[in-house]
Formats: sequence, C-alpha cells, structure tokens
Amino acid sequence: MSIPAEAFFLTPGFNGTLQQQIQQMVAEGILRGRFRPGEKLPSSRGLAEHLGVSRITVTLAYTELVSGDYLTARGRSGYYVSDTAPMQPGFEFEERPHRDTVDWERIVGRRFSRHELIARPVDWQSYAYPFIYGQADATLFDHQNWRQCALRALGKRDFEVLTADFYERDDPMLIEYIMRSILPRRGISARPEEILLTMGAQNALWLASEILLGQGSRAAVENPCYPGLRAILGQIGAEVLPVEVDADGLLPEAVPEGIEAIFTTPSHHCPTNATMPIGRRTALLERAGREDFLVIEDDYEFEMSFLKPAAPALKSLDREGRVIHVGSFSKSLFPGLRLGYLVASEAFIREARALRAAMLRHTPGHIQRTVAYFLSLGHYDALINRLNQAYKRRRTVMDEAIRTHGLEIAGQGAFGGSSFWMRAPAAVDTGLLAVDLRAKGVLIEPGRAFFAPGTAPRNYYRLAYSSISQNRIPEGIALIAEALRETGANQVA
Amino acid sequence: MSIPAEAFFLTPGFNGTLQQQIQQMVAEGILRGRFRPGEKLPSSRGLAEHLGVSRITVTLAYTELVSGDYLTARGRSGYYVSDTAPMQPGFEFEERPHRDTVDWERIVGRRFSRHELIARPVDWQSYAYPFIYGQADATLFDHQNWRQCALRALGKRDFEVLTADFYERDDPMLIEYIMRSILPRRGISARPEEILLTMGAQNALWLASEILLGQGSRAAVENPCYPGLRAILGQIGAEVLPVEVDADGLLPEAVPEGIEAIFTTPSHHCPTNATMPIGRRTALLERAGREDFLVIEDDYEFEMSFLKPAAPALKSLDREGRVIHVGSFSKSLFPGLRLGYLVASEAFIREARALRAAMLRHTPGHIQRTVAYFLSLGHYDALINRLNQAYKRRRTVMDEAIRTHGLEIAGQGAFGGSSFWMRAPAAVDTGLLAVDLRAKGVLIEPGRAFFAPGTAPRNYYRLAYSSISQNRIPEGIALIAEALRETGANQVA
Repeated sequence: MSIPAEAFFLTPGFNGTLQQQIQQMVAEGILRGRFRPGEKLPSSRGLAEHLGVSRITVTLAYTELVSGDYLTARGRSGYYVSDTAPMQPGFEFEERPHRDTVDWERIVGRRFSRHELIARPVDWQSYAYPFIYGQADATLFDHQNWRQCALRALGKRDFEVLTADFYERDDPMLIEYIMRSILPRRGISARPEEILLTMGAQNALWLASEILLGQGSRAAVENPCYPGLRAILGQIGAEVLPVEVDADGLLPEAVPEGIEAIFTTPSHHCPTNATMPIGRRTALLERAGREDFLVIEDDYEFEMSFLKPAAPALKSLDREGRVIHVGSFSKSLFPGLRLGYLVASEAFIREARALRAAMLRHTPGHIQRTVAYFLSLGHYDALINRLNQAYKRRRTVMDEAIRTHGLEIAGQGAFGGSSFWMRAPAAVDTGLLAVDLRAKGVLIEPGRAFFAPGTAPRNYYRLAYSSISQNRIPEGIALIAEALRETGANQVA
Repeated sequence: MSIPAEAFFLTPGFNGTLQQQIQQMVAEGILRGRFRPGEKLPSSRGLAEHLGVSRITVTLAYTELVSGDYLTARGRSGYYVSDTAPMQPGFEFEERPHRDTVDWERIVGRRFSRHELIARPVDWQSYAYPFIYGQADATLFDHQNWRQCALRALGKRDFEVLTADFYERDDPMLIEYIMRSILPRRGISARPEEILLTMGAQNALWLASEILLGQGSRAAVENPCYPGLRAILGQIGAEVLPVEVDADGLLPEAVPEGIEAIFTTPSHHCPTNATMPIGRRTALLERAGREDFLVIEDDYEFEMSFLKPAAPALKSLDREGRVIHVGSFSKSLFPGLRLGYLVASEAFIREARALRAAMLRHTPGHIQRTVAYFLSLGHYDALINRLNQAYKRRRTVMDEAIRTHGLEIAGQGAFGGSSFWMRAPAAVDTGLLAVDLRAKGVLIEPGRAFFAPGTAPRNYYRLAYSSISQNRIPEGIALIAEALRETGANQVA
C-alpha cells in the first residue's frame, strides 16, 4: 500500500526549513504508527507538487530519512518505510484516570514553594517600557560571535568535552581563563583547586549555604537583599538575621554577634547599588577573623563599572581564607546560560565539588567550552565594553528624566550598574503601582521582595535600564510619575 | 609608536581558524596592556607575510577586532588600538601569600566528599579495550544532526529561549515532546504541571531525596545499586536500608517495614540489568499503598531494549500518585548533556520546581531547545535505533567471548542494556584486577562501589559494551580471562 501525498500538510509558522518540516512529518507518521513498514511514500515529484515546494527539497528530506533508517530507497521504484524503522512500543496504552491518595500536605506542604520570587511577565519584550532587570538585550548582545563560538564547541575536536560527564572536573580551558584573566581583575589569585564552576550565582550561593549552614544556623544577610538568597536560607531552615545597609552598603558594626556566616554584595549592593568602601571591607574581615565567621561575597555586577574602575573584590583582602567568592556570567553574558563560579579555600571547594557531583554532576560541557572560546577570543571584553557604553548613556537619560519628573532615587551607586533603586511616597504600595503601570506597557519591579519579611516597606521599587532602549526611557519615566500622582490623588480623595 | 609584526606568533595545534588565532593574539595583547591605545598595528600585508598566512585572513581578523572596538581603522593609514578598547583594571595587583586560619575540618570535614564514585580515567578513549559504561560512542552518535539542531536553537527566533532565565518554567516545546512522545512509550500519561526538567537523573534523584527525606529518614535502596544514589542519601543523612535483588530484580517481600521511600530501577536494574516482572511491580505498589511509602522509579536504560520491547514503566501502574518517575537523556544522547526529568503528582512537582529554582533555577535554555529539535525531527528515535542495533551485535560478540573464556556472568538481563554484570572467583579483588588490566589497555569497572558498605563483596565487576568497538571485544575479554588466571595462580602460589 502506498501513502498518498495528501497525508502531508505544511504548518504555517513552522520554526525551521521546509526540508526539516517534511522530515518531521514523515518521522512522526512512522513513530506514531500511521505509516507502517513496507508502505510506499509519495514520489518526490508528487509530494513536491502537493506541498508546493521544490522537488530537491523533498529528495533531500527523503535522503535524510534514509540515513536515519526511517526509509529505504528501492532504486527507481521510490522510497518505502524501512522494516527496521524506529517505532513506538507495541503495548496497548490506555489512559486510566487515577486519584492521588498521597497526603502531600503532610509530606511536603509548601516547604520549598512558599518563597517569593520577583514576578516578571514571560512576554516582557512585548511591553513598550520594560524597566526590568537582568535580561539580555538583543540589541547589545553579540549574538553572531556567540553562535560562532558555540558552533566551534560543537566540532569534532570538542566531541568529548561536549558528550562526556566530568563528575569532579570542569573544563580546564575555562578554569584557566577564569584564573588568568577574570580573577586578576578582581585582585584575586587562585589555583585551579580553589575554583568550582556552578549553575550561575544562585547555585553557588546554594552550595555555600548547604555546606556551611543547617537547620537553626545563624546567618546574616543585608537588608534589603537579593530575594533568591533568602529563599535558599529559608529552605535550609537557617535563622536569617537582617543587617541594615546605608549609602556605603553593609555596616560592619551592625553585624549581629554569634553568626556562622554573612552574605554580602560589596562591589554592588543588591538592590541599592552601593559599593562598600575599603574601610568597611577591612573592618568586616577583622570582625570575621575575631569572631570566627565566614563571609560569602557575591561579586555582583562588578563588570558594570563605567563611572569608576571596579574596586578589587573583598576576597582580594582575605588573608585567612574566610571569604567565599561568588562570580557569575549571568549579567555579563545572559542569565539563561546558568554559569557562575566559586572561589574559596581548597578544603571548601573539595566539599562543594562533591556536593555538586551528587546534586547535578557538572554544568553542561558544551556551555563551558562555548564560554571559554567567547572569552579567549576577546568577544567577552568587547561585549562588556559595549554594554558599559550603552548603560552609561541610558543611565544619563534615566537620571535626567527622573529629576525632571521629581521622582526620588533611593540608591544609584557611584560605579555604575544597570538599575536605580527608587523610593515612592510612603503611602504608595509599589506592588499595586506595578499592576497599574503594566496596563500602560510599563514594567517596574516592586521592592517588597528584597526586604526581610515583616520589616518590608511597600513603597520601594527598582528601575533597571539593562533592557530598555534609550529613546523609550523619558516617556516611560513620565508614565511612572503620572501613575504616582494619580495614586497620591486617589489617597487624598 | 607602532607594533612590530614580530610581536605575533602562531601557536601550533591551536584549536580554531587562523583568523581566530590572530584575533585572539591582538585582543589578549590589548587586554594584558602590552598594546596601548593609539598604537599602530602591523599592515595586513606585513603581518600576513610574517605569519605566512593570506592577507585577507589578517584583514578579516582586523575587521572583526574593529567591530569589537579593539581597533579603529584610519583610512589608508591602517589600524590602531582603539582609545576606548576593552582593558583590564588599573589597580595594582600583587599576589600576597595567605595562610588559611579557618578550621575547615570542624566546619565541613569530609561530609560531602567521603562518598565513592566510579573511577574512570579521563583519557579512557586512548585505551584499546574500554569496557567502560555510559559514555557516548563517537562512532554511533549522530553528531552532524546534533550540530544542526544546536545551530538552529542558536538562531534569532530562539534568542529568548537561549538567553532568558525561566525561574519556574521549562521549554514548553520540550515538555510537550516528552509528554506526547516519550511518556506514552512508558505507558505514562502526564500533564505539563506533572513534569519537571532536571540536570540529568542524578539531579532528579537528588531533588526527590531532598524533598522527601531528611536526617534520619528511613529509605530503602536496592543492593547492589547505583552508587550516585547512595552518595545522595548519605549526604542528606537518611538511614539507608539495602534490599537484596535476584534475577528478577527487587523482592517486594524483602522491603523492610517503616520506610518512607524506596528507590528502584524496575526497567533495568543497575547494575545487574534484571527487569522486574509485572507481578513484583504490582506487589510493590500494593505494599506502598498499604504501608504508605513512596516509590522513586529510576527508569534507567529503558531505551536499550533490543531483545524484547520495553515493559511499561512502574509509574504506568500507579493509581495513587505514589510513584515518582525519573527519566534521563544521558544514556540515549550523552551524559555531558545533563538533562533528565521528573514525572510525579502536581503537589510534588510544585515543590521540586521551587527547590530547583532555589538551587539552580533551570537547565540552560539552549540545551532544552536543542534536544526539543533533535527529538521532534526524529533524529532521537533514529539514534536509539542505531544504538540498539549496534549494542545487539556487540552483546552477541561479548556473550560468545565470555563463554569461550569461561568467565561467569552474574547478570545480563533479558531485554538488552549496554553491559554485563560479572562475577570473578570469590578470592579475586576486582579493584586490583582493574589496576592490572589498565596497564594492558583494558578498562573494567570494579563492582564494589555498587554494594552497601560492609556487605560489599570484592569479586564483582561490570563490563559495558556501549563504548568499545565490536572487533576489540574478543581480545579484550581474552585479556581479562588471562589476568583472572594469573590472579588465581598467584593466590595458589
């Protein structure tokens, strides 16, 4: 029996070539059992005419399918479904309804899911004024060179890097580059045994917390701070002690006594962008030494220093091995990459490596090697350079617009960054404000999630300029100012 | 001042094109401060002659460097280091020695690193007889189509999938494919809210353990079992209760009472390859319901069923939501991919999603989309088909060679797989045997790591045929037999 050309239809908007679409239709038909071994496919001419594509396209698709053993070619007589074609299993599959009798509430409850994350609409790019944070800007990212490096990392020479599992090991080429080129910029010297790749900074903070803390451990965090960190510590069951920050970041004297570890972002406090002066850094390390606690440094956004050169990392002042340094490529490349690193004493890294091996083994080899190429060819530094120039321009425009409309800046940082930390009038709930603004195409980040529960004021918000184009900024700020006036008016009324 | 062509040298064996190498040399020179803003580069002709490459290659490299703002072109007068070129920071960087005063032994000890992993030489491919397990075989893997799918996933249309962080979400295209095409082959029907992508099966087992168990929880595992699982449970501090297996896998009656969860590999027991018959599966689920414990099913190697069609998964018999199903692409694609998935009740997946978000956010978007394309184009099923045909041939050759040399098979499985579970004479320590054999170019896996500590016999070993070419098998087995005879002789002597 032969399969009629009419059994095939092109899907409008299919993401891929016509040849790929034809391959997919045939392969699926065979896998789903619609086309059976021995059945004859339409002639390439017949199918080409029916689909309105060139005959060569069909022939190429058929040839591909032959190499995948979906089809066999019988000389002049055409193409047939192969007798050894891939197939779905023979057993009957019926959907039987089932009711869940497990008491999940008792077993898990919401132990892990109760923590707030920053809400961001999936389709944020379709909004006119996206003041959202930390997403790659397609107009700035060096997509072409990224593709070339990725393609190179897919080459035969890198087959093992691509496919093998490393357990304990990381890509030596990337470790070497981090050690020789990235860490020296932070004033840090480290040996390979003191560096571990992680699934972004989030995973690095998680590994450090899991290793150093447990149920009831006392850990200090900055207030406000990165919400993802609070989620980690909450899940581990540590006692979280918030430490107030001012325009110079964390206050060493304010650190409570009897803690096991403190988490800090000295280069660029999240979310206020404050940079900790050298005096406070040494004071913090002295206390850490005296009271024997550890310091986890999230070296957040150090690359975005376009106003002043970045200060050396806290880790560079560490003479006792107390600082666990966290770096990331999420902001400088893109967050979907999920690549960061830990730098700390060998004894700590050894344990972090073992924990990482048990929880996920390692980050995909292909990602590691692609980044290694992107860095080594200088594309990375060129990108940082381009980002900084664009951010600098955007920041100036933001600054002007914010002042023009009399909005209040709560924190902007002296080095650069990619966002402003803003304060609305005390009575304003920026959570509600964000909802109003979203309807007008403006995306802002309510500040509540950054604060320790209970203490959380509702009138802060973050305005990032890492993903919004310069020319949209003034109008976006104007809309925010307008919405704030309306809220004010409503409250008076 | 101008930079002499002699400042540049080609590195022999550089992995990349000549143009890439020239770009890298110039970019590094600028980043390291050897070449300063305003300095003139050698003419393209001059550098081309010096390096012995075509002039166009140099010109292309220079053009790339201009677009990265490393260089500026001044009309006819040539190329200069750009005034705004990327640079390393200005601060002085001196390496000060430091001594680690932190008592790491007290803080962490070897809590995470004490667990045994299967040792495999990094350069295993350079061994003549690699009976090693679970690595991609370059002669079987469809590298070309993988590259094409990866390249497609690097396209502009997929920019957001590549770059964005999803927090809670996974690639809908991949989830859809798993739901519609993979799970039905296992007899499982699931909604998207019941599926979560993980960093391989290891990460799936880790998430399940972290959510369901804690310090002192009672968990049953098969004995022998996958060592990576024992490492997880050990780190969590759960009480691990080994359950003996026979030729039909786990014995439901042998499961101890009062457990909270049991981990099992019904499709293909690791490492014996036994497949659990339907009777035992239903008996296990009945006990789970009666005694209210959960079952984590590692649906290990179900794809490698070339002797009989794969039996439906345990999860397909689950009417109460007690089975947490773990799937992986590590064996069918390659382990370096780090991609697997969990299928379970929505309440469980919700928590697993939140825990994953806190520990690593999500698996890289590019990896997810590449696999989605590879699956949807039918390359995946074609690959499985090819693997199975090759494994079937290799297995026959293994079987013959093993019998010819009178080695003892302890477990081989009736469905297929990619390895034999072997038993050496009681007096043999296969750990030492492996060392002897390695010197002769033969790699085998000592069995000790698979057994519960204490109970561990030393005379088992695993011989995989997933990475060794068919024609090497007979000689490899002969060498093993010879080594075993020698060991025996030594013991007599």
